[in-house]
Amino acid sequence: MLINQSMVDKAESLMPELISSVAEPKAVVDIVADESAFQGWRVDQAVDQEWKEKVLGKGDSFILDFQDHLVGYIRLRIKPVGSPPDAPLKLKLTIGEMPCEIAEPFDTYNGWLSSSWLQEETIFVDVLPAEIKLPRRYTFRFVKVDVLDTSVKYKVSFEEVNCTAVTSGDVSSIKPLPDQLSEELALMDRIAIKTLQDCMQSVFEDGPKRDRRLWIGDLRLQAQANYLTFNNHDLVKRCLYLFAGMRLPDGAVGACVFEKPHAHVDDTRLYDYSLFFVACLYDYYEASKDMATLQELWPIALEQMEIAAQRLEEDGVVRDDETWWSFIDWHPELNKQAPTQGVLIYCLKQGLELARVLSESDKQQYIESLIERTSAAAVKHLWDEEKGFFVSGSERQISWASQIWLVLAEVLPAEENATLLNRLFEEQPAIGMTTPYMYHHLIEALFTVGSREKALEQMQAYWGEMIKDGADTFWELYNPEDKKLSPYGSNLINSYCHAWSCTPTYFIRKYLL
Amino acid sequence: MLINQSMVDKAESLMPELISSVAEPKAVVDIVADESAFQGWRVDQAVDQEWKEKVLGKGDSFILDFQDHLVGYIRLRIKPVGSPPDAPLKLKLTIGEMPCEIAEPFDTYNGWLSSSWLQEETIFVDVLPAEIKLPRRYTFRFVKVDVLDTSVKYKVSFEEVNCTAVTSGDVSSIKPLPDQLSEELALMDRIAIKTLQDCMQSVFEDGPKRDRRLWIGDLRLQAQANYLTFNNHDLVKRCLYLFAGMRLPDGAVGACVFEKPHAHVDDTRLYDYSLFFVACLYDYYEASKDMATLQELWPIALEQMEIAAQRLEEDGVVRDDETWWSFIDWHPELNKQAPTQGVLIYCLKQGLELARVLSESDKQQYIESLIERTSAAAVKHLWDEEKGFFVSGSERQISWASQIWLVLAEVLPAEENATLLNRLFEEQPAIGMTTPYMYHHLIEALFTVGSREKALEQMQAYWGEMIKDGADTFWELYNPEDKKLSPYGSNLINSYCHAWSCTPTYFIRKYLL
Repeated sequence: MLINQSMVDKAESLMPELISSVAEPKAVVDIVADESAFQGWRVDQAVDQEWKEKVLGKGDSFILDFQDHLVGYIRLRIKPVGSPPDAPLKLKLTIGEMPCEIAEPFDTYNGWLSSSWLQEETIFVDVLPAEIKLPRRYTFRFVKVDVLDTSVKYKVSFEEVNCTAVTSGDVSSIKPLPDQLSEELALMDRIAIKTLQDCMQSVFEDGPKRDRRLWIGDLRLQAQANYLTFNNHDLVKRCLYLFAGMRLPDGAVGACVFEKPHAHVDDTRLYDYSLFFVACLYDYYEASKDMATLQELWPIALEQMEIAAQRLEEDGVVRDDETWWSFIDWHPELNKQAPTQGVLIYCLKQGLELARVLSESDKQQYIESLIERTSAAAVKHLWDEEKGFFVSGSERQISWASQIWLVLAEVLPAEENATLLNRLFEEQPAIGMTTPYMYHHLIEALFTVGSREKALEQMQAYWGEMIKDGADTFWELYNPEDKKLSPYGSNLINSYCHAWSCTPTYFIRKYLL
Repeated sequence: MLINQSMVDKAESLMPELISSVAEPKAVVDIVADESAFQGWRVDQAVDQEWKEKVLGKGDSFILDFQDHLVGYIRLRIKPVGSPPDAPLKLKLTIGEMPCEIAEPFDTYNGWLSSSWLQEETIFVDVLPAEIKLPRRYTFRFVKVDVLDTSVKYKVSFEEVNCTAVTSGDVSSIKPLPDQLSEELALMDRIAIKTLQDCMQSVFEDGPKRDRRLWIGDLRLQAQANYLTFNNHDLVKRCLYLFAGMRLPDGAVGACVFEKPHAHVDDTRLYDYSLFFVACLYDYYEASKDMATLQELWPIALEQMEIAAQRLEEDGVVRDDETWWSFIDWHPELNKQAPTQGVLIYCLKQGLELARVLSESDKQQYIESLIERTSAAAVKHLWDEEKGFFVSGSERQISWASQIWLVLAEVLPAEENATLLNRLFEEQPAIGMTTPYMYHHLIEALFTVGSREKALEQMQAYWGEMIKDGADTFWELYNPEDKKLSPYGSNLINSYCHAWSCTPTYFIRKYLL
């Protein structure tokens, strides 16, 4: 890996202090199978709401509902009841963002992501009474406590179960929305902000339950939402320096970065994600006007464009292949070529703006020529005049992603972009969108072409439906037509508070006020 | 409970410093079903003896054999192999004294003691590389490491697994045995000492795996073995003060004491165990000649005899009942009346000696009259002249325990005691012995009546067989005829290093040198 230690040091010097607050459980609940409920599980208030001081023996359990999404540290205080405890207490905690995580046994999990993400602990308590501060951080709304064993001589009762929630997002810095905004949008804004807040830790994490790390694709959207809400420039700057300070061997920005045991970049390389370093820097400069940072990081942004250009075929179209070379969306059949061409042009255009700000005229010319070459290639080789859509790959696939990204790249004249998006809704190509991340880009495209109503309608149909399905924070994955959808093989492992889903607050505050 | 704080404080001031030493695993083994092996499990050396640096992924495991019985703290050093770890490591450790604990799944356990004693941990490691010091103390020879999950992007390897073993028994203080002693007895002595050593912690524990606490029945035998080996008087004194400082409401000494979170006596009351406070004090004074402690604790010893006398019926025999009122042995059908009468007389005789040492003539008279009354009653009401055995309870049960304890009480003339023990072996009454604790008293009785050869033969037939069955330390329970015997419903939960089994070293060093 390519390490620039002074940049890494600068990132570390920007380590935020986390804000903590203590949350208490609000109710005891039962989670009941119900086909009409989201993912088949309904949350009912338990008949018996007592849990503190209740005497529990082997086989007893209760489910606490904190009625809020939390990221933090769980503490339990437990006392023995009966004779002096003559054996350890064996306890199981099952910790979940969603009812499915509490109700469906984790040993049924058979997805391809590591089962180690499923939040559970089996704890032996040798000495009672005990105050237990679990050392790991959890992300949850529900905690199921199973008393696996005490002994014939004693039982236990719980005096306290609480959570010290942590975030680097200071809600007091957020401007209140004007009163005239609909309640529905105000609620959507609040949930979006909570989503962003819970992902704001010592970096912008993608999901605080999973993967708990900094991905540049998520960072870009989080930072955009952040500039209109928490407005924490230092956290974005820290993340930019982490990506800039640790790159892949050829200089490409990595797709994600780990913080522990020391900051290090992952070996995942995604063409679109490397390019987003340009977009992130552009957005950061627009929001902060921090010229020093722009000057220091510009060479790395430029290098991303140069590296990206190396993948262009002679015809000016980015080279396709069968590997996981570009992210775009989780859709398993999506061809990445055309949408990636859109990302490239989109980022080149932001890079050009930065070159102008820096008065780098040589670089302006270089980028301008790249934009011209790639845009012309997109129209010439990817635009299918007959079908009225951009096509992607050797199979000439027509996908939502291709249209959306090439609209965002503004390859066609403005009025044709609007027409293209209308056609997309009319013809509904089969290769759709699977993530809020892709939905974000659809909405952004709609606002870009001036389709404010359509954008709002789509926000309501997507994030609004998540709210109806019980979202406390917005989810990594959501398909109103297939509510158990997971690209990982099980909805148990999905992240239910995910960075890339936080952008309704960005749309509301940027376009709807 | 009846607390004498100054006695408790004295006990706490005698808290020993533990001696620690680091033990490394010696081999990688397979545990293989084999009906001819002890409890059906054979330990084979694994073909592949490499474990350090071996790359392990989901589903991989290995079993480390430390080739010694250990009590202490496990430390692991683990490093990732492959891409940067993008998910926690999920690890399971199964920790056992015996092969059965490693080979038989703990979820099959169905005994009546708490399953929380079974030594296992499921650990999530969020950051790699990691050095993990497990906070709980384990008692084991074998550790099975199961890698439950890593991720598709990385595996792990173990750089170190070791154990910091702890004890308050300083082996350097033990006198070597003379060369002429047989190898078999030298080995038995060594294993007995190791058993005692591993039980010597901040108190004399009954078993370092289970129950990990101070029982007075075990203490008495441990102290006797200790005086001839480690000769740690302070640890016995600490234990005596714990029992003396915290008693049951009527003044009776409790059966056992817990140390944490602060010293406290259990609510278990056993008639024989309360009386053993007298015997423990007698043995301690004999070994230490510590007059100050004898003087301070004498009133409590006297009180135990007074309380015991309250249970005598008018005929001078201790009252029987259906509850768990006296321990004697784990045999489920054993009637406790006659053997308990033996314990009473045995302890009264030691109490009388202490009264003489203290020149308490009034008390001497009181105890002498009690001895006369209970001894006469034993002969008159419990001795069945026709059968030639002591009988116990309303069903006039003939058991080994009754004969042994009434021989130890020396109720009959000396030559008749020897005859009675011979008759016991000839007629083999059905109500036999189930624990090394009861076997100890048989051997002690044999030595007492001068049957040195028979005593040695029995030691070889019992502890010698345990050695042949692979004992690294002597076991809580052993029946050469039923090797899976457990009074708890499963041999998984038996203690395989147990205080009351450590006495071969006492017999060898007291009677056989």
